[in-house]
Amino acid sequence: MHQAVYEGDRRLRVIDVPETAPGPGQVQIDVAFTGICGTDLHILHGDMDRRVTTPAVLGHEMSGTVARLGEGVAGWATGDPVTVLPVLPCGACRTCAAGHGHVCPRLTFLGIDSAGSMQQRWNVPAQALVRLPETLDLAHGALAEPTAVAVHDVRRSGLTAGEHAVVVGGGPVGLLIGVVARHAGAHVMVLEPSPQRRALADRLGFPAADPTGADTAALVEDWTGGEGAAVAFEVSGAAAGATAAVHVLAPRGRLVMVAIHATPREIDLHRFFWRELTMLGARLYSRDDMSTAVDLVAAGRIPAADLITHVEPLHRAGEAFAALESGAGVMKVLLDCAVRR
Amino acid sequence: MHQAVYEGDRRLRVIDVPETAPGPGQVQIDVAFTGICGTDLHILHGDMDRRVTTPAVLGHEMSGTVARLGEGVAGWATGDPVTVLPVLPCGACRTCAAGHGHVCPRLTFLGIDSAGSMQQRWNVPAQALVRLPETLDLAHGALAEPTAVAVHDVRRSGLTAGEHAVVVGGGPVGLLIGVVARHAGAHVMVLEPSPQRRALADRLGFPAADPTGADTAALVEDWTGGEGAAVAFEVSGAAAGATAAVHVLAPRGRLVMVAIHATPREIDLHRFFWRELTMLGARLYSRDDMSTAVDLVAAGRIPAADLITHVEPLHRAGEAFAALESGAGVMKVLLDCAVRR
Ligand SMILES: [Zn+2]
Ligand SMILES: [Zn+2]
Repeated sequence: MHQAVYEGDRRLRVIDVPETAPGPGQVQIDVAFTGICGTDLHILHGDMDRRVTTPAVLGHEMSGTVARLGEGVAGWATGDPVTVLPVLPCGACRTCAAGHGHVCPRLTFLGIDSAGSMQQRWNVPAQALVRLPETLDLAHGALAEPTAVAVHDVRRSGLTAGEHAVVVGGGPVGLLIGVVARHAGAHVMVLEPSPQRRALADRLGFPAADPTGADTAALVEDWTGGEGAAVAFEVSGAAAGATAAVHVLAPRGRLVMVAIHATPREIDLHRFFWRELTMLGARLYSRDDMSTAVDLVAAGRIPAADLITHVEPLHRAGEAFAALESGAGVMKVLLDCAVRR
Repeated sequence: MHQAVYEGDRRLRVIDVPETAPGPGQVQIDVAFTGICGTDLHILHGDMDRRVTTPAVLGHEMSGTVARLGEGVAGWATGDPVTVLPVLPCGACRTCAAGHGHVCPRLTFLGIDSAGSMQQRWNVPAQALVRLPETLDLAHGALAEPTAVAVHDVRRSGLTAGEHAVVVGGGPVGLLIGVVARHAGAHVMVLEPSPQRRALADRLGFPAADPTGADTAALVEDWTGGEGAAVAFEVSGAAAGATAAVHVLAPRGRLVMVAIHATPREIDLHRFFWRELTMLGARLYSRDDMSTAVDLVAAGRIPAADLITHVEPLHRAGEAFAALESGAGVMKVLLDCAVRR
């Protein structure tokens, strides 16, 4: 079977390896689709070499069907459509005991800390499986994971119907957050410098503005009738994005920090004090978030056709990564990993 | 009667002025004690000249007794011991409607935006009065306002019994937060560079460490058995304090931003993301916080005798401000404003 392997030094190669049987407690999945995410790109760029052991099979946004059951696995049958919750907490620490296993300090993440789904057959612990509806297009099913991120971010914000939310950064995660927030009853505005991404936001029904050189605080004040936004999602990863996200908020506004900022950012703490703002870090998701995400995808609430801009066969993984880097017009790139029988 | 007046340009003068009768809806208070707070110092230093109209009577931490009632005021009698809730929200905006009047954008604060309590007789709107118990030492009553700040900060943190909380900065507000947090059942550690302030923290029963050049994250990890603190209160106002407050927190930890940071600070947003930390700005207090504070002071839960290090008569207001600036051994300085009959 084929797998795409990160070999270090910015090298990605598709190789042919013998398939291994699922071990006790494992399930083998026939992978259908694997999405490429920003984290995968970071790994390819060497930014996570201290964490990733090469050669590494990447991939954690996926869909597929159950192929084989390892010893002791019950409750699943060959052909069951599934996605995977790639988060394996230690289960023993105080963070896990408090129900926050997704931020467990000893977390194992499938596709980063162990082999991922950029391969044709993938063995995973049975407890990681999440059932997908029989009727769901498996390409759409691969969006369950990024949708779970958005569900988690919106839940963390405490957003309620009728509130105004600003999404800073209109990439795939930003737009998914927008969609989930709107589904929760919020008014959503997107701030995004790329005209292509603004056009897509617009097509999805979101007012979208270019933050470059704009007074975004004034813009949002206008949009909200003078009060500012109740919630901001910082998804851009840029210093200016973090600043904008702080300054668009009304008193008692909540800022959800979704993006990865590799270096510390200058934050206006006086504004936090004065307006009693809240900043909430948000990472990954819980099993509940994933279930909600599957329901949203299955109900057609996620604009999958607009978000999936490229599908490439697994053996063209290198080209697929290159496409993702090529420009703002590219949103979600899927690898088609199916074995052609 | 006498009043201490800020005249601009770092000048404070005690002058003799004719007393004015309370207007309709107002109550005249015979001021007993007024505490000097950090904000009063900032005003004297000219840091708030854009907000303060000179000549300005400062002061908002106070106790006294009702002297006279203006037209239409009911429910109060001459001699009633009182303190004042100096927060007057607009009552009309969305923030007020949501119950967060203390961060109303059109808030009036007595002692900053209008005349304060550094005078012998003070006219305030009747709705600002807060009753003090008859038996309470009025010098202690002047601690109700800073205690309300601490109550608000602890409430904002969501602290629960058994949790570990780190107070960064062992001045009067920091120690009051420590006392209130401990009363809520938390384990409290104080980080403070001044040996005098650490000695006081120690006398109050708090483990106190010098953060200067120390690995405070490792220190707190040890103290908490390896997990980090559930809550940190940043009360120092220093860049290093903000950094320490972020890094002592366990996954899902909450940082309450109490101090005023006049300039933006470099904040490790990746840590917020990775550990799903929360930062909550905290400013002022609600009427409920003030009631809780009065109860704590009245019950002897606040170490008033340790915290009140200086009492000066009103006519020595200049010397009292100078004492407050003179060193870390000075905690709370009160002005005795009573008319000697
Ligand atoms: Zn754990
Ligand atoms: Zn208001």
